[in-house]
Amino acid sequence: MAGGDEPVGPTDAAAVPRFAGVGTFARLPALAEVPRWDIAVVGIPFDGGTSYRPGARFGPAAVRQGSRLLRPYNPAQETLPFALAQVVDAGDIACTPFSTEEAVNQIQAAADSLLETGGRLVAIGGDHTVALPLLRATARRHGPVALVHFDAHLDTWDTYFGQRFTHGTPFRRAWEEGLLRTDRSVHVGLRGPLYADTDLTDDSGMGFAQVTTDDVATRGVAAVAQQVLARVGDAPVYVSVDIDVLDPAHAPGTGTPEAGGLTSRELLSLVRALEPATIVGADVVEVSPAYDQSEITAVAAAHVLYDLLTLMARRPVPA
Amino acid sequence: MAGGDEPVGPTDAAAVPRFAGVGTFARLPALAEVPRWDIAVVGIPFDGGTSYRPGARFGPAAVRQGSRLLRPYNPAQETLPFALAQVVDAGDIACTPFSTEEAVNQIQAAADSLLETGGRLVAIGGDHTVALPLLRATARRHGPVALVHFDAHLDTWDTYFGQRFTHGTPFRRAWEEGLLRTDRSVHVGLRGPLYADTDLTDDSGMGFAQVTTDDVATRGVAAVAQQVLARVGDAPVYVSVDIDVLDPAHAPGTGTPEAGGLTSRELLSLVRALEPATIVGADVVEVSPAYDQSEITAVAAAHVLYDLLTLMARRPVPA
Amino acid sequence: MAGGDEPVGPTDAAAVPRFAGVGTFARLPALAEVPRWDIAVVGIPFDGGTSYRPGARFGPAAVRQGSRLLRPYNPAQETLPFALAQVVDAGDIACTPFSTEEAVNQIQAAADSLLETGGRLVAIGGDHTVALPLLRATARRHGPVALVHFDAHLDTWDTYFGQRFTHGTPFRRAWEEGLLRTDRSVHVGLRGPLYADTDLTDDSGMGFAQVTTDDVATRGVAAVAQQVLARVGDAPVYVSVDIDVLDPAHAPGTGTPEAGGLTSRELLSLVRALEPATIVGADVVEVSPAYDQSEITAVAAAHVLYDLLTLMARRPVPA
Amino acid sequence: MAGGDEPVGPTDAAAVPRFAGVGTFARLPALAEVPRWDIAVVGIPFDGGTSYRPGARFGPAAVRQGSRLLRPYNPAQETLPFALAQVVDAGDIACTPFSTEEAVNQIQAAADSLLETGGRLVAIGGDHTVALPLLRATARRHGPVALVHFDAHLDTWDTYFGQRFTHGTPFRRAWEEGLLRTDRSVHVGLRGPLYADTDLTDDSGMGFAQVTTDDVATRGVAAVAQQVLARVGDAPVYVSVDIDVLDPAHAPGTGTPEAGGLTSRELLSLVRALEPATIVGADVVEVSPAYDQSEITAVAAAHVLYDLLTLMARRPVPA
Amino acid sequence: MAGGDEPVGPTDAAAVPRFAGVGTFARLPALAEVPRWDIAVVGIPFDGGTSYRPGARFGPAAVRQGSRLLRPYNPAQETLPFALAQVVDAGDIACTPFSTEEAVNQIQAAADSLLETGGRLVAIGGDHTVALPLLRATARRHGPVALVHFDAHLDTWDTYFGQRFTHGTPFRRAWEEGLLRTDRSVHVGLRGPLYADTDLTDDSGMGFAQVTTDDVATRGVAAVAQQVLARVGDAPVYVSVDIDVLDPAHAPGTGTPEAGGLTSRELLSLVRALEPATIVGADVVEVSPAYDQSEITAVAAAHVLYDLLTLMARRPVPA
Amino acid sequence: MAGGDEPVGPTDAAAVPRFAGVGTFARLPALAEVPRWDIAVVGIPFDGGTSYRPGARFGPAAVRQGSRLLRPYNPAQETLPFALAQVVDAGDIACTPFSTEEAVNQIQAAADSLLETGGRLVAIGGDHTVALPLLRATARRHGPVALVHFDAHLDTWDTYFGQRFTHGTPFRRAWEEGLLRTDRSVHVGLRGPLYADTDLTDDSGMGFAQVTTDDVATRGVAAVAQQVLARVGDAPVYVSVDIDVLDPAHAPGTGTPEAGGLTSRELLSLVRALEPATIVGADVVEVSPAYDQSEITAVAAAHVLYDLLTLMARRPVPA
Repeated sequence: MAGGDEPVGPTDAAAVPRFAGVGTFARLPALAEVPRWDIAVVGIPFDGGTSYRPGARFGPAAVRQGSRLLRPYNPAQETLPFALAQVVDAGDIACTPFSTEEAVNQIQAAADSLLETGGRLVAIGGDHTVALPLLRATARRHGPVALVHFDAHLDTWDTYFGQRFTHGTPFRRAWEEGLLRTDRSVHVGLRGPLYADTDLTDDSGMGFAQVTTDDVATRGVAAVAQQVLARVGDAPVYVSVDIDVLDPAHAPGTGTPEAGGLTSRELLSLVRALEPATIVGADVVEVSPAYDQSEITAVAAAHVLYDLLTLMARRPVPA
Repeated sequence: MAGGDEPVGPTDAAAVPRFAGVGTFARLPALAEVPRWDIAVVGIPFDGGTSYRPGARFGPAAVRQGSRLLRPYNPAQETLPFALAQVVDAGDIACTPFSTEEAVNQIQAAADSLLETGGRLVAIGGDHTVALPLLRATARRHGPVALVHFDAHLDTWDTYFGQRFTHGTPFRRAWEEGLLRTDRSVHVGLRGPLYADTDLTDDSGMGFAQVTTDDVATRGVAAVAQQVLARVGDAPVYVSVDIDVLDPAHAPGTGTPEAGGLTSRELLSLVRALEPATIVGADVVEVSPAYDQSEITAVAAAHVLYDLLTLMARRPVPA
Repeated sequence: MAGGDEPVGPTDAAAVPRFAGVGTFARLPALAEVPRWDIAVVGIPFDGGTSYRPGARFGPAAVRQGSRLLRPYNPAQETLPFALAQVVDAGDIACTPFSTEEAVNQIQAAADSLLETGGRLVAIGGDHTVALPLLRATARRHGPVALVHFDAHLDTWDTYFGQRFTHGTPFRRAWEEGLLRTDRSVHVGLRGPLYADTDLTDDSGMGFAQVTTDDVATRGVAAVAQQVLARVGDAPVYVSVDIDVLDPAHAPGTGTPEAGGLTSRELLSLVRALEPATIVGADVVEVSPAYDQSEITAVAAAHVLYDLLTLMARRPVPA
Repeated sequence: MAGGDEPVGPTDAAAVPRFAGVGTFARLPALAEVPRWDIAVVGIPFDGGTSYRPGARFGPAAVRQGSRLLRPYNPAQETLPFALAQVVDAGDIACTPFSTEEAVNQIQAAADSLLETGGRLVAIGGDHTVALPLLRATARRHGPVALVHFDAHLDTWDTYFGQRFTHGTPFRRAWEEGLLRTDRSVHVGLRGPLYADTDLTDDSGMGFAQVTTDDVATRGVAAVAQQVLARVGDAPVYVSVDIDVLDPAHAPGTGTPEAGGLTSRELLSLVRALEPATIVGADVVEVSPAYDQSEITAVAAAHVLYDLLTLMARRPVPA
Repeated sequence: MAGGDEPVGPTDAAAVPRFAGVGTFARLPALAEVPRWDIAVVGIPFDGGTSYRPGARFGPAAVRQGSRLLRPYNPAQETLPFALAQVVDAGDIACTPFSTEEAVNQIQAAADSLLETGGRLVAIGGDHTVALPLLRATARRHGPVALVHFDAHLDTWDTYFGQRFTHGTPFRRAWEEGLLRTDRSVHVGLRGPLYADTDLTDDSGMGFAQVTTDDVATRGVAAVAQQVLARVGDAPVYVSVDIDVLDPAHAPGTGTPEAGGLTSRELLSLVRALEPATIVGADVVEVSPAYDQSEITAVAAAHVLYDLLTLMARRPVPA
Repeated sequence: MAGGDEPVGPTDAAAVPRFAGVGTFARLPALAEVPRWDIAVVGIPFDGGTSYRPGARFGPAAVRQGSRLLRPYNPAQETLPFALAQVVDAGDIACTPFSTEEAVNQIQAAADSLLETGGRLVAIGGDHTVALPLLRATARRHGPVALVHFDAHLDTWDTYFGQRFTHGTPFRRAWEEGLLRTDRSVHVGLRGPLYADTDLTDDSGMGFAQVTTDDVATRGVAAVAQQVLARVGDAPVYVSVDIDVLDPAHAPGTGTPEAGGLTSRELLSLVRALEPATIVGADVVEVSPAYDQSEITAVAAAHVLYDLLTLMARRPVPA
């Protein structure tokens, strides 16, 4: 943290038990409680773009509840992330549940406003629709970004029921709007049936690289991680994690489950391997708590967020 | 049933176990399997108008699954409903999940089309938004109807997030459009906090009578039933049952639960007491299966539907 | 208790916490731990006669687990039941899961054997099929019994898929075999759709009286209790409780749920009202734990069993 | 509200959807966000005094989540409670999970501190152990109080495993310490097995009146409500609601469930009937979310709290 | 597809949302809706042969519901399976729930009848008992088959409780009846305790090869897949998948769970590796929905079925 | 087994179905039913040391229920464990739920008493606090032991809320008391956030080796197993398995879940690899059934116990 004072960290678990007190992410300070901030966790409880099992509107509340066990030291990265940067919980972005188009604009405006007051955002969805306005706000500050997209699905479909803004289309919209460096972008964790082989060829036609879960299984986590890093190069990176990249065993609480996914251990390793990259924004989306069991999904999502925050805290970005 | 032949009834449970085979409501024939029909059960899997816990889009599938135990003879009404009228399952009305306005139009068009081929509709929601297009289609045939509305909530709010079509507004829209005989309409089962006392006065200003669950508890089911019958008089009646009229113990699987509700026994008695009324259409809405437990809600909804169908079968309506 | 010594009671909760230790019903002594016994709780984990949701084979284990909070003093009956009689847990009767006919014979043989060593049996099902062999064993000692049958269903159907022994037929078989004083027998809690009105007329033709849940709601618990007592008179009584007599809200964990049932409070009151009767045997059946939620059903069943045991302890039967 | 300005109310649901944003009780302002307060909701996430199913430490978080649907106008009491008084969420009291004695002292100290800055407390448990320190803090300001205690259990046992402070003993301790006007106190909702009849006679020997759920069923809610009001007279009243006073169907999420309980409708009516009483403090305890299903219990608890807050807002107490 | 016209494919998800409408497997046409068919999915809702947790009778309904997200293009096999062959849903085979022997005969007769009208069957269980009649019907057309059997268990036990037809015995019966080329057959996924080492030696004495999950872990999916292919050679293959071959994390919804199983990714890879084989029939059994969580098991089963169907569509079998 | 007679084995599943009868671990004889014993399974239902999600007090009952499918022959170890040694279920150790310090002493005393009558103990927790008294009792007989500790967490913290005996501190206490050969001890399965890097350095300062789940993933199960064996050498070994070493997908039913854990297959392989070691005691702890789903966790724990018992039966220890 540039400047003098220490960041304000999470509530001390030696004073307040983890099951008690403030419900912010990782028990971090709320945005209003600190004078300045570097990285903000923000909830976006919108699921109007969901095509199958809805409920990701309750995702932010559930992931925060599932983050209560997060402690300050990240041994996998040998870092105290909340000491390196002022990380805060910026609460939720309010938007209409009834119109995806209007919600997209509201989210974008709110993200823009937030970014005017600080550094970088890490969002908790909500469904994947929310990635588009976040990319807009991010690209406005950092230019087109390399997308590292963990997901069972491509999310580069065009429209669904005539709707251009859904959880299956954010990255086509982002590509159309020039928000992405698709030559430096990659999907990781693809699997499951598609509509046609043109789903894949259209997607690669936009420039995306594609890594399936079978690739991860066959070639190994380390090799895939190297491929991803080589892909993004030194471009500014946006990491978008659809929790359905995990196998339903590891993420029952999501809307469009596909068998054959990653384990949480694989996903955490792949995320941590992004250490050399400069991450300018991130999201973890599609946690649908009504389908979660014993917080399996919420805990996995919270851990992914924690590792993303650690990566970002370790590698500051010039304002 | 006018004309010669016997209605086609449900699959014979002595030939096909109840857990096996066709998944239509009460194992009734599908619409395409019969030459003509009197009453059609139709699913409307739309929940885009939901303000809190979503998921009623899976309501039709769950209620059908919960209806597998329904047998042909209704002892409470001493009737074989499926022998009195040709009751069918007309499947689901397809509509966009992304726009309430567009969905309302699609549902109305589909209901109109259905009604051109037969008699009366009993819908399975979906959220309460679907009542508006159903009332439009019903009123087109029968003129303004008396509404008997079982619900914890008034559903006569005006807009929410600027949206005129939501699950909290169908009956204001219907009133505005002249679809209701509000002088003959009544809410039953009201309870829970409101925004302001004007919620109630606005509603009664539109002409609705209001019966709370406390009224049911204090005055008894029989007295309330008499009040409802007196209210509707000889007007054609549309019965709309939001399953959240039941206590959360009796209907955990719904989106906006309010403590202090009816028991399923009270609701069934109140429904059956409508026997003298001429029911020209009905719906049972807001079953949200992701929140259901062991089919408690789905079974209750299926039983309410069964008694509504029986009432309607007993009292034919001129085509 | 005839003879000198005090009955052995449940494990002392001041010495062993209720969540610890022995898993017998109400933490009572096992049959092998006492020199003699008056009333034995016995599990019959058989569900091969189930027509819809199976799983009652796990009923005895679940009801025992749900009985751990039962304390020694019954304030509703102002009695210390386990001090009045030696009540034991006789474990489970083992029988084949694959043949209802063979299982019925095995259960009867085991019940007969048990009864040769002591007093009366209170069984935990298992599905309702098990009532038939229990009635055979009971009638062999006490002659035909008055049946007080709490159930949503009549269970006097004839056959199902050609099978004479199922959970829908035990009382027709018992009637055919002369095990019942049907002129003194009654069903309580009937509701839900039937196959035909002949279901009811056949049943009353065998002599049964019928009390619906609507009767309970309309006439009240006290009046129905009086009717039941008048019905049984001074005949020896067998009480058979299908837990689906409760509303699905009060008993989600069962196989053929019907909306509109009794509350657990109503059922307990009706059971306790049997105080003047001489109960020679009893069962509580159809708890299917895979469908239970937070032990709602198991706890209700355990409480019903506890009140039945108390009634029986208060009114000894000559050996 | 004494002084000029209007109380700060809940977050506007027309601006922020109910599933979004701040997680305080009923979306009320946090204590730090207002200059002064009249009534504070405070969580006490302690369950170290639990004898059976633990987990009430997560009760405050769950009840807050279950309170998101509470709207500002209470039609049952025809009151806008949050306009009559400044109601706030004071967060959670932190205390050790490992020692009931130490926790009791920590809770008492925290309650005392809170009360020095404002008016009255309404606590969310935690297990029933927390009632003792709350009564201490309350009696220090208001003298001995009349206790209106809704519970399946007496909670006037002496010790358990040698421990004087458990969830089964708070009111004996309170009686010993002279915190209660036991001649004006009453238990409502008693049922279920006890250790001995001396449980009851000891309790009445301390002065308590006892109302069972059978009394409620037999005599009716209105008569019991009158009895309670007559009992408390004009004494300052402390209302303690163990959520297990509800039937397990209405409150599966609790630690020591007993069949045969109240419905949520009955409980809400009994609470609202306390309108003439002067309530100086209250708690709702024993919500154990790991056993809850679809928020049935949390919603019931939230509604009870809402009606308690409304009563208290309507009837200010001199500072 | 031999002959002129295109196969009829699944319902178009751009017209009918996936949560709406027809409940056939993968939203395929029902058998009655097409003039001819190549491969039929058929449910066999029988679980009378279950030795532990029952409920697989609800398996077909659950797997169909879990198949709603299946799209037409299989990227792992680079195939549009439903364009290569006419795949249909043939509904459920009705059979008695009360007698395994009778049910086995009914299933066989129904399978025979079906096969007279078209090509090959892929069955959804039901418990593993159903594999025997399916093998009989298959062998009648194709002669003895090589069995590729994914399962935690051998299922070559002899009898259980004197019963020859149970879910633990189908492959011994099949071997006795000469339905299998056991020299070309293999179990994959074995693990968990057995009765004795003779379970294994008896099984290999019949000719089966045995692959444990430890083999898969140690030698890798590719090597095991090669072994399986080498084993079956060019024999006609029947694939039988007991879903308990998956770890309980990946398939909680089954009757006899064993820790240490396959992941869904491993199973899908092993199935897809059967590409060179000529599959003449298949089943996926032992999905027990009452134990499933958020459709984890049902989705995994649906994906396995989808890959089996794709393999079969790619490699037609002469009629 | 030294001496003449055969050990008494589990209840015969051919006589009593697995879902029926005695609820001891693996249906083994109770301690009182055999004249002598070699290895005793003992429950310790204590969770007073839990810092987050409680409920492990119900662990012994759940793991026993989850052990009903365990059969006598262990194919992974090619052993009939219950024929090699007399294994019994010694029931539960009763201790206060209200004081960790007192409970620790009670558990130690009970373990000591048990050990005076037989051989070795394998405990079912309860939370991890129980390992300390077990280590005391073990070390008294065998001297300081090598600890093989499977856990996500170090459990060598010092105090929490001033409490020295909690589930996060047993191995620091054990080290302080000289119960461990920390030069021969190792943690396996570490992951998840910590308080500070000093957590790790303090721990290694005590002598422990540390193996993370990333180590297992990167280096493989076999290499880690070799490392563990080399570490323990020929010292007497105590194996302590916190079930949270498994990923939440494989063990949802636990109190402090951390994403990225082991699979049940990996854990079983690591346990079995201890074959050359001389195990003098063991525990499997932290199963919290209220958070379990379909017995996933209980079954995994039961299988781990079964393999531990097999190892111990194969390698007797001089009395």
